[in-house]
Order: sequence, then C-alpha cells, then structure tokens
Amino acid sequence: MKIISEEIIKKTKGNCDIINITNEIETFLSKSKITNGVLTIFSIGSTGGVSTVEYEPGLLKDIKIFFDKILPSALRYNHDDTWGDGNGHSHLRSFLVKTSLSVPVIKGELTLGTWQQVVFIDFDNRPRTRRIVFQIMGE
Amino acid sequence: MKIISEEIIKKTKGNCDIINITNEIETFLSKSKITNGVLTIFSIGSTGGVSTVEYEPGLLKDIKIFFDKILPSALRYNHDDTWGDGNGHSHLRSFLVKTSLSVPVIKGELTLGTWQQVVFIDFDNRPRTRRIVFQIMGE
Amino acid sequence: MKIISEEIIKKTKGNCDIINITNEIETFLSKSKITNGVLTIFSIGSTGGVSTVEYEPGLLKDIKIFFDKILPSALRYNHDDTWGDGNGHSHLRSFLVKTSLSVPVIKGELTLGTWQQVVFIDFDNRPRTRRIVFQIMGE
Repeated sequence: MKIISEEIIKKTKGNCDIINITNEIETFLSKSKITNGVLTIFSIGSTGGVSTVEYEPGLLKDIKIFFDKILPSALRYNHDDTWGDGNGHSHLRSFLVKTSLSVPVIKGELTLGTWQQVVFIDFDNRPRTRRIVFQIMGE
Repeated sequence: MKIISEEIIKKTKGNCDIINITNEIETFLSKSKITNGVLTIFSIGSTGGVSTVEYEPGLLKDIKIFFDKILPSALRYNHDDTWGDGNGHSHLRSFLVKTSLSVPVIKGELTLGTWQQVVFIDFDNRPRTRRIVFQIMGE
Repeated sequence: MKIISEEIIKKTKGNCDIINITNEIETFLSKSKITNGVLTIFSIGSTGGVSTVEYEPGLLKDIKIFFDKILPSALRYNHDDTWGDGNGHSHLRSFLVKTSLSVPVIKGELTLGTWQQVVFIDFDNRPRTRRIVFQIMGE
C-alpha cells in the first residue's frame, strides 16, 4: 500500500472559471503506478470548488448562470463588511460545492463516465493562482 | 490493509428517482470482511448524485420539489443547444450534489445515524441503467 | 499503514449553528502520529453537514441567510406531515451540503488554506448533541 501526493498550480480567471483537470489527474495516476485505490482531489482555499461535469461550453455557461442566480455577485454580503473584498458570494458558493472529491481507481483507471470530467471551479471575483492537491492511496 | 471494489447496476426511472442503496453497501461491507476503513460510493456518469437522507416518502417528494425550484426542468439551458437531449438541469443538479461520498467504517459498521441512509439520485430526464461503484479500503 | 478513528461530541444550538472543528481535527491528527494520508470527517445523522469556510462572523450570517432563502424554515414540507417535527428544511439542507469531507494530510498537516477551516453545521431546528467521526488512514 502506497500514498503519493502532488500539488498542481493553476492560473484562473476567477468568476466561475471552470477548469478541466482530468488530464492532470490521469497523468498523476499513471506516474503513481497504483492501479487500485482511491484518489482524492482537494483545492486549497475557501473560494474554489471541485466536482465533476460533462465539460462542454453550454454547461459551463449554465453553471455560471445558475450561481449568479442563487448567489448573485451583485448582492451585498455580511462578509464584504468584514474584509471589503466583495467576494462574499465566492465563499458561499465554495462552501456549497466544497473543495474535496474522492474518486475510486480500479484496474488503473478512474471510475469516471465517458462524459464525466473532474473540474476545478474558481468562484473568486478576480484572477487567482491556485494550488490543487492530488493524493492517491492504494497498491 | 486491503482494497476491495464492486460495481452494482441499478435501473432507475430518472427524474429525481431516489434509490436507497444502504442495504447493498452493507452487504458489500459484510462480504469484504473489513472492519475498519473507509468506504467510497461513486456513481458513474454526469447526471446522478450520491448523498445521505432519511429515506421516507415525504422527504423524497421534498427533494424533487426543491430541485424543480432551483434548477427547473422546464427552463432552457445552454447545454440543451449542444446536444438537444433536454437534460441541462440534470447535469447542473449532479454538479451540485456530486457523485462521490466517503463513509467511515468502524468495528464493522458504517458510521451512519439511525435515520440516515445512503442514496443514489438519478437526475436524468429519462429511465437509465446506472453503474455505482463501492470501494472499501481498510483492514 | 494505520487506521485511527475517534468520535467527538458537540453540543449545538441548531438553526444553522456553524462550529469550527479544525482545532479538534488537528489535535486528533497530531495524536495519530500519521504524517501522510487522508482524513475523513463524517457527521452522524441526517440534519447536519460538513464543509470548509473562512470562519468569520459575516460569512456565518451569510450562510444562514442563504439557506433561509433557498430552503426556508417557514415553508411547509412533506416531511413535516410524516413526523410533525417541523424540520423538513433541515433534512434538505443536509442532503445538499452532505455529511462527509475528505482532506489530504501531507507532511503532518491538513492541506487547508490559511483562511479555510473545517466546520460542522447543524441544520436541525433545535439544540442537539452531535457525534462527529474523525478517521485517518495513512502512515
């Protein structure tokens, strides 16, 4: 049984920028030589999120529209009174989507569907340089 | 330390069909002979979800009503322009609920509450045959 | 490779009471002597949730306001007809946020950001005594 971890760096545009990190995860998995286990993806920080989605432009727009509806950036949040950086909506969206995802690995493959990609979503209101952790435990 | 995985197949009605998979998970756990570890449930595909809920008919209706309110099936989504299969809302709901859940196992038992069941929810807009992965790592 | 589990007990006020459990997790991690692995946090029961957030009073208020908007406590839910305990909204919020979170541990540290804390949120409509499980697997 082994544990291998890696951190990748991603430059984002913020504002619901959705980045497909599936290729990076598969490269990490392949290098690890682990064929059975669980792979955890964790985005460091409190204004990002990790989930899966069919990565196509229509849905990426739909996700942005959805979050602008349920947690509008134009609304005033109490968080904005604390720091004045105007990203209260970013924190709430991150709280909701969460920053962690665990994907089983079987016979050397992530158990994703054909149209299912792992994505990092940057909810912050400005471009960011992000650290995302990949960790695999298995054999 | 062992890793054991299994895939189950579930026929669903789609449209927020919520299926209690706790019994299947417990059977899998029992067969694995693992008594301490972590059990990951992962639904393959980008229009499903996995979470926990008190599995009673009132709540199942409430969940359906809630998703019809925040992500209505009747709305037009950009995703629908891409594929024309009319399930943009299904993808967004899946992105939000996510397809993965990790449950600790202690002394041979899942650490669920008495009224807490693990469920698969099918957000797609039609009946589907679904693959759900169970994986346990432990000893 | 080791697996160590612990359960903590938390008294809450219910009604979106958000409790910072990061210190307890770090104490647990430190006692475990495990420096590489994955730490799972799981709240037992179907009206709680676990996520990460910047733990500052403004955001705690914002989270409460957000859930009162998308899943109002004042609304009537079908669940309330089943049990009559008036906490249908609590169950739906828990279903959405989910009761599990996995955080990688690298070089003896949780991979959290500086402003990112792990929180338990009690969505129930009354004070509760809660059991939260910490489990670490690693070496």
